[in-house]
Amino acid sequence: MDLVGAIDVGASKTLVTVRPVAFSGWEPHFPTVRFPTPSTPNALVRALDASLARLATKAGGRIVVVGCGTPGPLDPDRGVIIHSPNQGWRDVPLGALLEERLRVPVRLEDDANAGALGEATLGAGRGADPVVFVTVSSGIGSGIIVGGRVLRGAHASAGEIGHLVVDPAGIRCGCGRRGCVETLAAGRGIERRALAAWSRAGAHRTPTPVTAKEVFRAARAGDPVARRIVDDGADALAWAFAVVVATIDPERIVVGGAVGVGQRGYVRRAARRARRRCLLGSAAGLQVVPAALGRECVLAGAAVTAARGYEAAG
Amino acid sequence: MDLVGAIDVGASKTLVTVRPVAFSGWEPHFPTVRFPTPSTPNALVRALDASLARLATKAGGRIVVVGCGTPGPLDPDRGVIIHSPNQGWRDVPLGALLEERLRVPVRLEDDANAGALGEATLGAGRGADPVVFVTVSSGIGSGIIVGGRVLRGAHASAGEIGHLVVDPAGIRCGCGRRGCVETLAAGRGIERRALAAWSRAGAHRTPTPVTAKEVFRAARAGDPVARRIVDDGADALAWAFAVVVATIDPERIVVGGAVGVGQRGYVRRAARRARRRCLLGSAAGLQVVPAALGRECVLAGAAVTAARGYEAAG
Repeated sequence: MDLVGAIDVGASKTLVTVRPVAFSGWEPHFPTVRFPTPSTPNALVRALDASLARLATKAGGRIVVVGCGTPGPLDPDRGVIIHSPNQGWRDVPLGALLEERLRVPVRLEDDANAGALGEATLGAGRGADPVVFVTVSSGIGSGIIVGGRVLRGAHASAGEIGHLVVDPAGIRCGCGRRGCVETLAAGRGIERRALAAWSRAGAHRTPTPVTAKEVFRAARAGDPVARRIVDDGADALAWAFAVVVATIDPERIVVGGAVGVGQRGYVRRAARRARRRCLLGSAAGLQVVPAALGRECVLAGAAVTAARGYEAAG
Repeated sequence: MDLVGAIDVGASKTLVTVRPVAFSGWEPHFPTVRFPTPSTPNALVRALDASLARLATKAGGRIVVVGCGTPGPLDPDRGVIIHSPNQGWRDVPLGALLEERLRVPVRLEDDANAGALGEATLGAGRGADPVVFVTVSSGIGSGIIVGGRVLRGAHASAGEIGHLVVDPAGIRCGCGRRGCVETLAAGRGIERRALAAWSRAGAHRTPTPVTAKEVFRAARAGDPVARRIVDDGADALAWAFAVVVATIDPERIVVGGAVGVGQRGYVRRAARRARRRCLLGSAAGLQVVPAALGRECVLAGAAVTAARGYEAAG
């Protein structure tokens, strides 16, 4: 049986799985291998080779094509990771390294775009067009699928709504600016703001780490500081949704990520506010739904990209 | 010679021209017929038929396909104008009416999208991808071209950035909400705000109409009220640009319309502020340029749409 190999190289963990290359849905019963993402590209390539070989044997087939999702920025056409802050990699030709080792075509895809393609094709976005996938976890990522294809933009930055500045006087973001959407609406920003506010109020022993989940729980319990932080977050997330609706006019926004899937009331509040900021026609028809593939959305998208390339070539 | 007929049905004026169906650039020396847009669809169809026949004879060819740009909302697939507020038309099957009369295929396109397609294919957007066309005149319209194709959205509302609410406490917009981008950044809003402010200050005799041009001139001359209004406008226009950059990551934004082309300093200021609100990579590479086709951009886009359909069918 001809198989497609699917890889998700995350900041901390790497996931690997295989599917028949002519798959139509995302069957969850296939085995997946997980391991901590190695610190060098060569160690990663060796580990991926071993995992794929093992999975192929188990599935009784041979791998004919591979798709790999990894954090951007990257150049999908050349198969090069331009910069991977978590690993400290720069200009790593992961596509070529894998092709040399595995002797099959390898397709690299930005993980936000791969996740979007996975959810749009095989998950909660199925049947809708356009689909925008927004992950709300420690940060905010997003991918835009129009007519079944990833919208990349001129500098591979389409869908970077998490880094739109909504509060120029806000807290510093990892991207270098202040008050990006994700400093207000996503997990890390919510934790930082809560820790600072509670410390100022003397209500929290500073060394204790604060989790976003705790902030949401405190807000539901009536803590005024937490309520304000969550409210600001919903406003910023509403901006992200509204911006997407005003430009792309999606049929469906699929929301994933730990915060996006775990805090459904928060997402609903943001969606309500977003609708008030947009033209009636697009706002009224918009669907905002939770993601369906969980942590496997990047694997699914990587598989879709690779299988499509294989069909086009074959 | 086989000709394509190109039509721009505007709110007040209608423009008609013809080109060889295998045109490659937008030659300006072809004759164009103009007349006030008739008040009924039947009168419009008769006037278009007569104009096209005259133009075809003059050009020594026969019309084989027609493209028609008209204000949305419309359904380009069915060729139906859903609602035309200026004419008071609802559900007018203009495509079918024209096809019946002219006996050639007719392709309808939203005028903002037609203008975008014209500028992207034959005007200031040539060679760039994606291209976003933003017209700033009495209101704000916009069209998005990705891979040479119009991005329509699920409810034909993609690119409606003029109606993103940036100031919920702002003045009422024609769309029913308050504080849309265009109430601050476009001509009609600038005129309304200046008239109100100057009347309050006793500095303007209320019956005298204020033009946006006068407000820009007063701002340059140092009038504090005009300066604030123009500054608020640049901020709102910066929002519109930033929103487009964060989602689409265009290679080029083409700015048209009387205010967009006439007030270049205003557009440059907005573009500068927009860059500060977006991720460095997309902001640094972004080009913001004035439109090249003037009032003929909708005609050009209508011709492109029609000629493409003819090639695909032929």
